Amino acid sequence: MNKNRLEAFSDGVLAIIITIMVLEFKVPEGIDCTSLKPILPKFLSYILSFIYVGIYWNNHHHMMHTVKRVNGGILWANLHLLFWLSLIPFVTAYIGENHFAPFPMMMYGVILLMNGIAYFILQNLILKHHGKDSLLSKALGKDYKGKSSPILYFMAILLANPYPAIAGGIYIFVALMWLVPDKRIERIFNENE
Amino acid sequence: MNKNRLEAFSDGVLAIIITIMVLEFKVPEGIDCTSLKPILPKFLSYILSFIYVGIYWNNHHHMMHTVKRVNGGILWANLHLLFWLSLIPFVTAYIGENHFAPFPMMMYGVILLMNGIAYFILQNLILKHHGKDSLLSKALGKDYKGKSSPILYFMAILLANPYPAIAGGIYIFVALMWLVPDKRIERIFNENE
Amino acid sequence: MNKNRLEAFSDGVLAIIITIMVLEFKVPEGIDCTSLKPILPKFLSYILSFIYVGIYWNNHHHMMHTVKRVNGGILWANLHLLFWLSLIPFVTAYIGENHFAPFPMMMYGVILLMNGIAYFILQNLILKHHGKDSLLSKALGKDYKGKSSPILYFMAILLANPYPAIAGGIYIFVALMWLVPDKRIERIFNENE
Amino acid sequence: MNKNRLEAFSDGVLAIIITIMVLEFKVPEGIDCTSLKPILPKFLSYILSFIYVGIYWNNHHHMMHTVKRVNGGILWANLHLLFWLSLIPFVTAYIGENHFAPFPMMMYGVILLMNGIAYFILQNLILKHHGKDSLLSKALGKDYKGKSSPILYFMAILLANPYPAIAGGIYIFVALMWLVPDKRIERIFNENE
Repeated sequence: MNKNRLEAFSDGVLAIIITIMVLEFKVPEGIDCTSLKPILPKFLSYILSFIYVGIYWNNHHHMMHTVKRVNGGILWANLHLLFWLSLIPFVTAYIGENHFAPFPMMMYGVILLMNGIAYFILQNLILKHHGKDSLLSKALGKDYKGKSSPILYFMAILLANPYPAIAGGIYIFVALMWLVPDKRIERIFNENE
Repeated sequence: MNKNRLEAFSDGVLAIIITIMVLEFKVPEGIDCTSLKPILPKFLSYILSFIYVGIYWNNHHHMMHTVKRVNGGILWANLHLLFWLSLIPFVTAYIGENHFAPFPMMMYGVILLMNGIAYFILQNLILKHHGKDSLLSKALGKDYKGKSSPILYFMAILLANPYPAIAGGIYIFVALMWLVPDKRIERIFNENE
Repeated sequence: MNKNRLEAFSDGVLAIIITIMVLEFKVPEGIDCTSLKPILPKFLSYILSFIYVGIYWNNHHHMMHTVKRVNGGILWANLHLLFWLSLIPFVTAYIGENHFAPFPMMMYGVILLMNGIAYFILQNLILKHHGKDSLLSKALGKDYKGKSSPILYFMAILLANPYPAIAGGIYIFVALMWLVPDKRIERIFNENE
Repeated sequence: MNKNRLEAFSDGVLAIIITIMVLEFKVPEGIDCTSLKPILPKFLSYILSFIYVGIYWNNHHHMMHTVKRVNGGILWANLHLLFWLSLIPFVTAYIGENHFAPFPMMMYGVILLMNGIAYFILQNLILKHHGKDSLLSKALGKDYKGKSSPILYFMAILLANPYPAIAGGIYIFVALMWLVPDKRIERIFNENE
């Protein structure tokens, strides 16, 4: 079984997820500068979620690049990941519309945590299918980022009520942690090609 | 005629179908735990339909993998299947919004039945085009799942009024029946590659 | 310049066009059989437009299959076609919501006519780019369907007011005309492969 | 790292961006000619934005055609461009709904300017990654269009208040400037293939 359609389908779903978040921006009624103000929290939450979906696309792209063949388990683990990713637009609108209130911020963390877990399951199935000496296994190394993210999400969920700002800070921190390029991984990829 | 664009177009339509169901989740007004309660039935129906679309994508992926060439009839049988699949988001919202009431549950079954029939037509056209000794023919075997699903959907349609819970149980049962991996099929695929 | 991305982009746009029409089906309020009645005209217009978009995708698929290289003109003629195709969901909702009233039926014909013209322009640019002895040129032959469709659309536009039923009949006739498989074209394709 | 998935993902996002703008056309209530009048400004803004997204897709297509390999920086610069492109449907609806009022016209220019800058960043990263003698470098030449567009957008932003018509004229001018085929670039592409 080849991986091309899995990549194409995932790309399609991710492209839609990242784009339908914009549909939440209702056109403001006024035509002066202040009329855009109510959109500001939605815009900020859109930026954060766009980066998260971008990170998932980026990591998915890298991981699938090392994959040679897929099986039924990997197909379903991938669909399971897409399921949780598809809920990001909902929690994004939820925190944006409620100005980052404690409970919505907690729910945002829950969805990020479920995505982290779903990605972890997918990654492990691929590792099992390809062996310990595979390219992916080398590239991941100790996988500090992958292991620390769920713990950080969990902390954010606990702290979101009554400190939503701290939860928000943690979400931004995790996003930045993944955004910073990982020179070591790219080197391993380049050496092996 | 090659099959690449048929796969790409089907992936695109399936990716959109699976994702637009999320647009039904209107952001709740409250910001506490109870405000999410009205979303629960929609969420449950989303999970069920996500799994069904996932199953169709999975089976479509496997079936098309065995296809070498397509003709006009196959192209239209595929569009016919996509037509019925495109109605799944509608019946999903219908049962979710009406808390799994009898008539909506019946309609959900009707759409699943039409999808099953459309898939059956597509499968038969491909079998006819590729011969009885083809890989697909061997992989399908007696096709117990494919033959029993429409019968189960039909039973659910009859029982949905006045027993929507039984219809729901049948829909969940059929989904699980397809989710359970079919070792025999994967073996046949692997042997032939 | 290769044609792969043009095909991928067109498939994406066509997949979205064919699917967003379903978003017009608002979930009905009642939970009995009669509550689905207001959706019926929308459903009928959806079937018609689904077939039209399917025909365009089918013909586009066949035409692009014969194309070896594209230039800037072909890229823009393709975008021009996608522009008019993207208006089909709008006129579909327009005739469905107004129960096939004269003026909406006229507008439906205008959009079909513009699509026919846009397709004709694209086809001619490709023919010019590939020569009179090309596979596409042979497959098209006298192109009776391509030439008669705009005339039929034009008649429908003129007759829609005050006879919307005749316009509707013409739209159904043209769709059926294209649906009927063209054995001759497939033979030419098969002989040349 | 290959560029295929970057192209596929970008095509998906661009296809969705160009199509969801149509969702803004609410079906008018009347069924005579005048009922379409309120849609006219939305339709005009749709045409303009469709052309802009078409230009970006076209240029992206050409630029990526010359790219041999991508790195993490290019992936993120591409996502950054997609982010600003995803805001085009919002400002399109904003100017359409407010009949091209000064402040919305200014915001339209701001988004176009951000897109121009994002494209410039992506282009420079690709140039840096491929060297000064690359095909892209030759094809761009002095890149008069790429350099003058941001300046023109900036002028439009300054003039939009109180002269929205002048801003609109500038947006139309820039679009036409890119639409006019650049024979020199196609020649360089053709010579090198």
